[in-house]
Amino acid sequence: MKITVKAPANIAFIKYWGKRNEKLRLPANSSISMNLSGAYTTTSVEFDSKLKSDILILNNKEVVGREMERVSKHLDLIRSIAKSKNYAQVKSTNNFPKGAGIASSASGFAALTVAAAKAVNLNLSEKKLSILARLGSGSACRSIPNGFVEWKMGNSSESSYARSLFGSEYWNIYDLIAVVGENSKKISSTEGHAVAESSPFYKTRLSGMKDKVAEIKSALKRKDFTKFGEITEAEAINMHTVMMTSVPPLYYLLPGTLDVISHVLELREKGIECYFTIDAGPNVHVICKEENKRKIQKVLSDIKSVKTVLINRAACGARVI
Amino acid sequence: MKITVKAPANIAFIKYWGKRNEKLRLPANSSISMNLSGAYTTTSVEFDSKLKSDILILNNKEVVGREMERVSKHLDLIRSIAKSKNYAQVKSTNNFPKGAGIASSASGFAALTVAAAKAVNLNLSEKKLSILARLGSGSACRSIPNGFVEWKMGNSSESSYARSLFGSEYWNIYDLIAVVGENSKKISSTEGHAVAESSPFYKTRLSGMKDKVAEIKSALKRKDFTKFGEITEAEAINMHTVMMTSVPPLYYLLPGTLDVISHVLELREKGIECYFTIDAGPNVHVICKEENKRKIQKVLSDIKSVKTVLINRAACGARVI
Repeated sequence: MKITVKAPANIAFIKYWGKRNEKLRLPANSSISMNLSGAYTTTSVEFDSKLKSDILILNNKEVVGREMERVSKHLDLIRSIAKSKNYAQVKSTNNFPKGAGIASSASGFAALTVAAAKAVNLNLSEKKLSILARLGSGSACRSIPNGFVEWKMGNSSESSYARSLFGSEYWNIYDLIAVVGENSKKISSTEGHAVAESSPFYKTRLSGMKDKVAEIKSALKRKDFTKFGEITEAEAINMHTVMMTSVPPLYYLLPGTLDVISHVLELREKGIECYFTIDAGPNVHVICKEENKRKIQKVLSDIKSVKTVLINRAACGARVI
Repeated sequence: MKITVKAPANIAFIKYWGKRNEKLRLPANSSISMNLSGAYTTTSVEFDSKLKSDILILNNKEVVGREMERVSKHLDLIRSIAKSKNYAQVKSTNNFPKGAGIASSASGFAALTVAAAKAVNLNLSEKKLSILARLGSGSACRSIPNGFVEWKMGNSSESSYARSLFGSEYWNIYDLIAVVGENSKKISSTEGHAVAESSPFYKTRLSGMKDKVAEIKSALKRKDFTKFGEITEAEAINMHTVMMTSVPPLYYLLPGTLDVISHVLELREKGIECYFTIDAGPNVHVICKEENKRKIQKVLSDIKSVKTVLINRAACGARVI
């Protein structure tokens, strides 16, 4: 049985940076995100008793090495639950270009988890799928439920999973991704998480997380866009300051990143409300309400260092198609 | 009697950000700096019983308003010590262009202090001059003594002043200033200092300062350039993270700033040792040893966003010329 699943990337308003347990990918804090309608992975999985090993075809190319091993390890986990020994052929494509600096691990492991579980005939709850996805790649757990999502940090593997706070139709806000470059990650996210603790500011960051999560959930509930945006923006800078003050320091921002930030601040001064957030990479996610979407898109597109602007609103979570 | 004084700007390796006492400009921590040979202010002061008010001529233009008032207030302080009632004519020029983003308040208030004190016939020690300069503009106190300087935070106005750790000939290191833009300071340094406490990271920053000052003094004493550079670079980012996480956030970095930073990191990867530091502005100070000066100067000059590179080594403090 071949199962095909589409899973969205997600943008975190409250970020995940640093782990309490590396192997189980238990995060140091809860996080809040929105699934992205414009950036997703489509993955099909077919288990086959005739295969001698797993096969991974990524964007129409067979992949071996480290990427393959990580996928195989995740399939092992799902096979062990299903008590199956069959290898699988996995075909996966992202709708966003590889060089666009959008992380594919969240959408990729969400899609892989749901497709593989279904293909091996497991009937798992959304919660279980989220936990499994987390074990593949932390933030992938947030791409399982619908719309606006909270990943509760929990205190064990069983209690650390994501659930939907509100569906994708709840609030018509947009995430315009100003793509300024590839992730020039000399240090991967996984390695980055591991050095988070070396920042002198990390403890202070964590001590403020519980309140921050409560505040943004409250703003989300009230649809208070200003409060929501202010928290989001401060949180992004907070995470990047921890990154930059780590040992070794992690500089994910590019010159173009600051270029876009200064335009966001200018737009706001002109009364066009928008806020930025930035993942572990150089691209700037500009959050706005529908009424300002066109204007902001135009401004962002006209910035010299911006290669393209990807338009997203809230989307459903991973689902079989 | 007309007295003319030349005073250098200075670059801090351990920064001054945040005050314990705003009126007395008592800093929240001690700082370490080097006087700059290539960036200085020349100021002449002449008291004249015939004048009806102070006159300030800055870079050959008469200045009124806020800048004038700050100078007059500083002259009042010196007049009160000297028990003089005469107004003064102050002529001041900077050898660096106004748009170059180099703060002129340190060199300016150092030169003004020494010139005015001498012109009004006060015979003050270096310590007293440093205290007076501090009352005009905090970091000006560091431009009074020679070479490599420590500004001890002290616990009162009388105990907060700068002294020379080593003369200007002690160590042949260079500060190449890559000028990328003007200080787009919507918020002045004075206002910036006032919001430092609003950063969630400010307390953590301060708690680490005593050790950091001791470590860099030790590196300076041993002429351990690697250690010296590493502390300097981490400290600059530490200060900017506090700035960026303040309420309101202060973004002093421009796209060109990150451009230069990435070149510094690349140079280092290639074995050409250099480190950056950044004041409350966008320009990047690249610290290197003499043997690498030319190479680095060439690389910096070739960066598109760099307007000019100013070459500095350690310089004497403020002195009558």
